[in-house]
Amino acid sequence: METIKVTIAGPRGRMGKEAVKLVTDTDNFELISVIDHKNNGLLLSEIAGFSGVEVPVYTDMEECFNNQSPDVLIDLTTPEVGYQHTRTSLEWGVRPVVGTTGFTKEQLDELKTLAEEKGIGCILAPNFAIGAVLMMKFSQMAAKYFDDVEIIELHHDQKLDAPSGTAVKTAEMISENRGIKKQGHPSETETMKGARGADYNGMHIHSVRLPGLIAHQQVMFGADGQTLTVRHDSYNRASFMSGVKVCVDTVMKLDTLVYGLENILD
Amino acid sequence: METIKVTIAGPRGRMGKEAVKLVTDTDNFELISVIDHKNNGLLLSEIAGFSGVEVPVYTDMEECFNNQSPDVLIDLTTPEVGYQHTRTSLEWGVRPVVGTTGFTKEQLDELKTLAEEKGIGCILAPNFAIGAVLMMKFSQMAAKYFDDVEIIELHHDQKLDAPSGTAVKTAEMISENRGIKKQGHPSETETMKGARGADYNGMHIHSVRLPGLIAHQQVMFGADGQTLTVRHDSYNRASFMSGVKVCVDTVMKLDTLVYGLENILD
Amino acid sequence: METIKVTIAGPRGRMGKEAVKLVTDTDNFELISVIDHKNNGLLLSEIAGFSGVEVPVYTDMEECFNNQSPDVLIDLTTPEVGYQHTRTSLEWGVRPVVGTTGFTKEQLDELKTLAEEKGIGCILAPNFAIGAVLMMKFSQMAAKYFDDVEIIELHHDQKLDAPSGTAVKTAEMISENRGIKKQGHPSETETMKGARGADYNGMHIHSVRLPGLIAHQQVMFGADGQTLTVRHDSYNRASFMSGVKVCVDTVMKLDTLVYGLENILD
Amino acid sequence: METIKVTIAGPRGRMGKEAVKLVTDTDNFELISVIDHKNNGLLLSEIAGFSGVEVPVYTDMEECFNNQSPDVLIDLTTPEVGYQHTRTSLEWGVRPVVGTTGFTKEQLDELKTLAEEKGIGCILAPNFAIGAVLMMKFSQMAAKYFDDVEIIELHHDQKLDAPSGTAVKTAEMISENRGIKKQGHPSETETMKGARGADYNGMHIHSVRLPGLIAHQQVMFGADGQTLTVRHDSYNRASFMSGVKVCVDTVMKLDTLVYGLENILD
Repeated sequence: METIKVTIAGPRGRMGKEAVKLVTDTDNFELISVIDHKNNGLLLSEIAGFSGVEVPVYTDMEECFNNQSPDVLIDLTTPEVGYQHTRTSLEWGVRPVVGTTGFTKEQLDELKTLAEEKGIGCILAPNFAIGAVLMMKFSQMAAKYFDDVEIIELHHDQKLDAPSGTAVKTAEMISENRGIKKQGHPSETETMKGARGADYNGMHIHSVRLPGLIAHQQVMFGADGQTLTVRHDSYNRASFMSGVKVCVDTVMKLDTLVYGLENILD
Repeated sequence: METIKVTIAGPRGRMGKEAVKLVTDTDNFELISVIDHKNNGLLLSEIAGFSGVEVPVYTDMEECFNNQSPDVLIDLTTPEVGYQHTRTSLEWGVRPVVGTTGFTKEQLDELKTLAEEKGIGCILAPNFAIGAVLMMKFSQMAAKYFDDVEIIELHHDQKLDAPSGTAVKTAEMISENRGIKKQGHPSETETMKGARGADYNGMHIHSVRLPGLIAHQQVMFGADGQTLTVRHDSYNRASFMSGVKVCVDTVMKLDTLVYGLENILD
Repeated sequence: METIKVTIAGPRGRMGKEAVKLVTDTDNFELISVIDHKNNGLLLSEIAGFSGVEVPVYTDMEECFNNQSPDVLIDLTTPEVGYQHTRTSLEWGVRPVVGTTGFTKEQLDELKTLAEEKGIGCILAPNFAIGAVLMMKFSQMAAKYFDDVEIIELHHDQKLDAPSGTAVKTAEMISENRGIKKQGHPSETETMKGARGADYNGMHIHSVRLPGLIAHQQVMFGADGQTLTVRHDSYNRASFMSGVKVCVDTVMKLDTLVYGLENILD
Repeated sequence: METIKVTIAGPRGRMGKEAVKLVTDTDNFELISVIDHKNNGLLLSEIAGFSGVEVPVYTDMEECFNNQSPDVLIDLTTPEVGYQHTRTSLEWGVRPVVGTTGFTKEQLDELKTLAEEKGIGCILAPNFAIGAVLMMKFSQMAAKYFDDVEIIELHHDQKLDAPSGTAVKTAEMISENRGIKKQGHPSETETMKGARGADYNGMHIHSVRLPGLIAHQQVMFGADGQTLTVRHDSYNRASFMSGVKVCVDTVMKLDTLVYGLENILD
């Protein structure tokens, strides 16, 4: 397996730290530099928390790419700079894997055109948690064969909104293959309000909140004599890193821009 | 282990059929007769569905007890005759295990006095599903140590009411050890109505309905860094029989009346 | 939706009975006849357990097809007659959906050629439980992104063999996308023999047996900070019927033979 | 509720840090000092990680108790000093809650006598994870009514031994109420070695190891038509603190020594 040379933008953020760990721990990945709005000219190893990682820190992306030739840029910065980073990276022929969100339709179109002109891959991924993305994808697939589905999402009790964003996105994806169907007995009644959960196109969503829990979701499909369940448990931020790894491997084989991890998993 | 001689009242009902099977299949139980409002004088084996079970059928309970001396009466008839059966049984010194409900306070008091006069046991059990009773009992115990709890009950989609009677009973039992506490983040909001389920003294109950499911309930307790879950899955009517068995064994050792399976499990 | 006219071969078997129920209960399916090696000339409603289902019984398939023109034959007979039934059905232009197994390679090739000559669909399905098939398919897909997986299958305690056939088939399908990898800590030791379960190419399979259980399987994938679980619970034979329904709908759109439900689910 | 004044020995250890957080966060607990083999005379707030916690640090326990009058000592030090700490604490009339293990039979007897002479409580707890202790206790109780049980324990894949200590302890506690019974079909065979897990007095234990997992255990009981499941999920060290809290509250009401959290939970 050939080594893929990687530059990481935003190495000091929470995701960035995990990404530095991922790239240095993966056999066929090589971290060659990082981009940081501070610390230009230092070695990353000189910054607390990165001892042993002796790669140069650049503040200017073009200077970085002029000195080195990474294959892939992993960008874990903010929406404000993410677009410009992606654009510059594509112009220099460096494949971007970008975790920031909030690009406009025009920006996406422009970046896509640019990727195709350069004939290189580019992946924009609002959610790198590959298990969560597969859970949603499998749920969408199962909805072709099972009309009846309920979503139970479980989170720590400090979460403010219910249902979770992932639950709503899952329901949307299921709806594409299911249409609208009111579930449960037609004469069903709630003797305690809310017992049957939230209603989304006739399917039901239940939000459990308990101290101790982290981030979990279970999608249950039922039909005569059987149930099919898909569940994702996220225990900590490291869960995002297997998705980043898949993206780095995949972006090397693409020649266009792909939006969303679900579109590169098959 | 000494053999316990058993008479069953109501052998042709759904529960009765299971009870006949239970008693004939249990090593230290011996079925010696049945009481049925029809079929007096036949052998049970002459009735469809009971081939091989060669015990006499009586319509009159006193005639039955006059001819034979059962240790225990298992009564699975209706509330209308259940009281009279229990009374007669106690008068004849036969320990009753009764699955029917709806006794009045006066009837219960009278039967209790009678049991104590005779110095024999009597068990009245609205729910023989020992697993469900333990689930409720464990939940009540756990509530002493965990303030935060959510109940998820799951049933087939032909069920009319939500939440289930068992869920409400569980919440009541938990409340005895927990008091009232509003769970979740104080500023929590539902972006889709009902997502957080029903509220019972601040704990939440969620009712899942799907074809394929039978009768299931999961009680989840959470605290910093951990969750504790108690779950009961009921797949069919046979689930009641382990409770009947425990009652038959236990009623031999009692010298009073006990109401509710939870009060004989320790 | 156009009505699909269906003939069922083997209506009195356990699967056959469920299929009669399925077809008569499905809006756009119409049961027009059954094929049975007995009872020629009767109406199905004259046979115990089928009251109200007034369709003719044929013993001779060709006579049946000569009198009527079904769109689809559902064959739930035995391997001995399954092949001949499928062949005759194709020759008459009736699309077969066949639940029997044990065809030889030569028979399969011949039937495939015949289906393509006639330009009609034919589905041979060793397992109609669509939830189980999806569980296996999703597991195979997830194995592309998760190297680490354990299979827990749970069955009633009267099952003789461990692990179950479905668990082994799942492991085989996962292996196609995973290769061989020894899981767990390299220095892992069993202080009680068997604790880590069976080893299949380095993944582990655990067989739970308890009274009360029916047929369940859970496939768990793990990676840093997350787990992804796919689970199928089969409660009774009706679970096969959603698969039969999908096959009947799908066989109308095919012009070749497909072996295995997993190859028509997308 | 009256305020309970607490001194913590071993505040800088992993458990100690959590305990400082627990005591300062609990309304009716007040942290008045800590005992540390270093840092005598400092305020705890002067040590990294404890900003704001302005209580004195003592190296000498007797000096501490001479200056202050705590109600309870929480001791999270090592077995070497744990015994002496407990003894001194009892002598000064301060109720000890001790997380260290390894006391000899003689030491236990002596400490018990001392507690009773002083008429105060003392709790020694090898495991403060209240959820895990309840899981074991409930399993032991359920074993009176369910002969058939399997234990599935799930841990991260860096764990060296299988099954886990908690699984073995659970099996031992279940055995006290269950005796020896070989489960599964008498003619059951493993087509792949180890599939049925480890055998402990005829019950089976399965050890799942996957990256991502932390520490989980599920105990499943089965009987005709039903299963009863008790499960504990431990996500992080904070899970121990609810047990410490219960001990501090309980030790105030005791007048003897209790060994093991399971003996104060009812």
